[in-house]
Amino acid sequence: MSQGHELITLADVAAARQRICGLAHRTPVVSATSVGKPLGVRLYVKAELMQKTGSFKIRGCLNKLAQLSEHERQHDLLSMSSGNHAAALAWAAAQHGMRACIVMPASASPTKIDATRAYGGEIILTEGSLMDAMAAAAAERAMTLIHPFDDLAVIAGAATVGLEVLDDLESLDTLVVPVGGGGLISGVAAAVKQARPRVRVVGVEPAEADGMTRSLAAGSPVERIAGPTIADGLAPPITGRHTLAHVQEFVDEVVTIADEAIADATRLMMERTKLFVEPSAAAPLAALRAGAIRLRVNEMVVLVASGGNVDRRVLRTLAGATERSSR
Amino acid sequence: MSQGHELITLADVAAARQRICGLAHRTPVVSATSVGKPLGVRLYVKAELMQKTGSFKIRGCLNKLAQLSEHERQHDLLSMSSGNHAAALAWAAAQHGMRACIVMPASASPTKIDATRAYGGEIILTEGSLMDAMAAAAAERAMTLIHPFDDLAVIAGAATVGLEVLDDLESLDTLVVPVGGGGLISGVAAAVKQARPRVRVVGVEPAEADGMTRSLAAGSPVERIAGPTIADGLAPPITGRHTLAHVQEFVDEVVTIADEAIADATRLMMERTKLFVEPSAAAPLAALRAGAIRLRVNEMVVLVASGGNVDRRVLRTLAGATERSSR
Repeated sequence: MSQGHELITLADVAAARQRICGLAHRTPVVSATSVGKPLGVRLYVKAELMQKTGSFKIRGCLNKLAQLSEHERQHDLLSMSSGNHAAALAWAAAQHGMRACIVMPASASPTKIDATRAYGGEIILTEGSLMDAMAAAAAERAMTLIHPFDDLAVIAGAATVGLEVLDDLESLDTLVVPVGGGGLISGVAAAVKQARPRVRVVGVEPAEADGMTRSLAAGSPVERIAGPTIADGLAPPITGRHTLAHVQEFVDEVVTIADEAIADATRLMMERTKLFVEPSAAAPLAALRAGAIRLRVNEMVVLVASGGNVDRRVLRTLAGATERSSR
Repeated sequence: MSQGHELITLADVAAARQRICGLAHRTPVVSATSVGKPLGVRLYVKAELMQKTGSFKIRGCLNKLAQLSEHERQHDLLSMSSGNHAAALAWAAAQHGMRACIVMPASASPTKIDATRAYGGEIILTEGSLMDAMAAAAAERAMTLIHPFDDLAVIAGAATVGLEVLDDLESLDTLVVPVGGGGLISGVAAAVKQARPRVRVVGVEPAEADGMTRSLAAGSPVERIAGPTIADGLAPPITGRHTLAHVQEFVDEVVTIADEAIADATRLMMERTKLFVEPSAAAPLAALRAGAIRLRVNEMVVLVASGGNVDRRVLRTLAGATERSSR
């Protein structure tokens, strides 16, 4: 039940697509036949890791920045992020001749911190609450707040991923999407369910950061005390109000998956698809392999590979993990 | 000077393309703008790592097997390989209802050994000379020898990579290709130079395994006592007679590059292009970054990413290497 919450429409998504056209890549869908075969499905990957800045996040940022008021444009942008949104916002701000300041956890991926700086972003690292640090920064100087996911324009931008998948695959059955704050799945599910209702949309979040699952159970957004997870992109401090409403309305199911399974799936996905996915992007495959999602024989399944910003800590984990992939 | 050696023609390559069509993928060329920018060139990658079995090698194997005589078909196939040719031959043999036996070094990548077995290949591991082990195997039972690179049909198969790049990029200036035994560059250069002579073709081999460079200097194929190199696919025990002739005739230049630079380039290429390249496939980028290849401002350069079969030892090296990539 969305209880009167505002939901994005197909018109919103079509408008977003127009706004980001020419700035964002139209990423490819690639087949992952050998990975899907033992699962009994026809498997494809939406290679959104090949998006500019290495993740889907620029879609939402570009759509949001294109709609700022004159007043909002006069200030620097302020946001918070574990990394991919940070880099995307810094990059998108630069496209608009603006500057972004992003609060990031001190534990953030060095690769993502470096990238954000390289795109001209100002970074505030904090050991504490991202929300508190953002409030403190906003108190110091006037800035325009850009929520990393709980914003209808950001959600509509992310939704363009869903439209592209529908365009590429006529007979799609199931779309499996990683869930952090829920911006990506909110947009994708809203687009897919309104355009082609029979397609199933399933979300996957780490068991170590199951804020959406708990918010769905509670019926309202919970703050999550997320333990560390290898899927660093899927562990925001809060679940969104808008994203929860979209997930309630449009998503068939959200499942959780253990970190170890995510690590194994990351390595398997790299080895087989040759896509340099970050763990967040491999969570959907991990859920499929664990049997967490019911599958019909030979159905067509698309995994959204949300990002590819892999750091050395992840490489070390993948190099050391003990499971031998079966071929 | 090719001294009367037989060289492949464009007709050979066109015929190879017909033979492998429908079995081999037509792999994409992807842009690598952010990697090329600091080098002052428009950079593209031929993503041949997305080929079946994870390397270009099936092109040569398929073209060869399609031309075996009835007599040759009656025996199992025998070859030697550090890994990618092994997996490709096992896979291609299976397509023809045949079986392949491949001699591999005991130090071969476990990932490549596993893959070869999974495709139904029989493996003989040796600590000693691959050539001696192959001779010993051939003495035991009648088998049909398939040379991993020094064979005109294998070279013509690899050459289809070159045709595809020419089709995709009208204004290509320079093609940079990894060199091991020389099969890939022989084919690619033969195709490119006969179809579009003004395109420059440059080969890159590891300084630790510089058999082609030394063979060019000597004017005849040298056996190479190749030290270990991170680019395991570029260290065969011999240089070919046919491949040397093709390189002499069609290749503009062969340069060498240190292992450390190859490791750095591998990580950079993964991080930026999101392609899970093996070190052999990153040797061309390493050479570009080291200034080993003279470049004109804004020229269009294509790197052939020959394979993506990365094992954990490589991941460990990449995770541990100390250089921070500049962004």
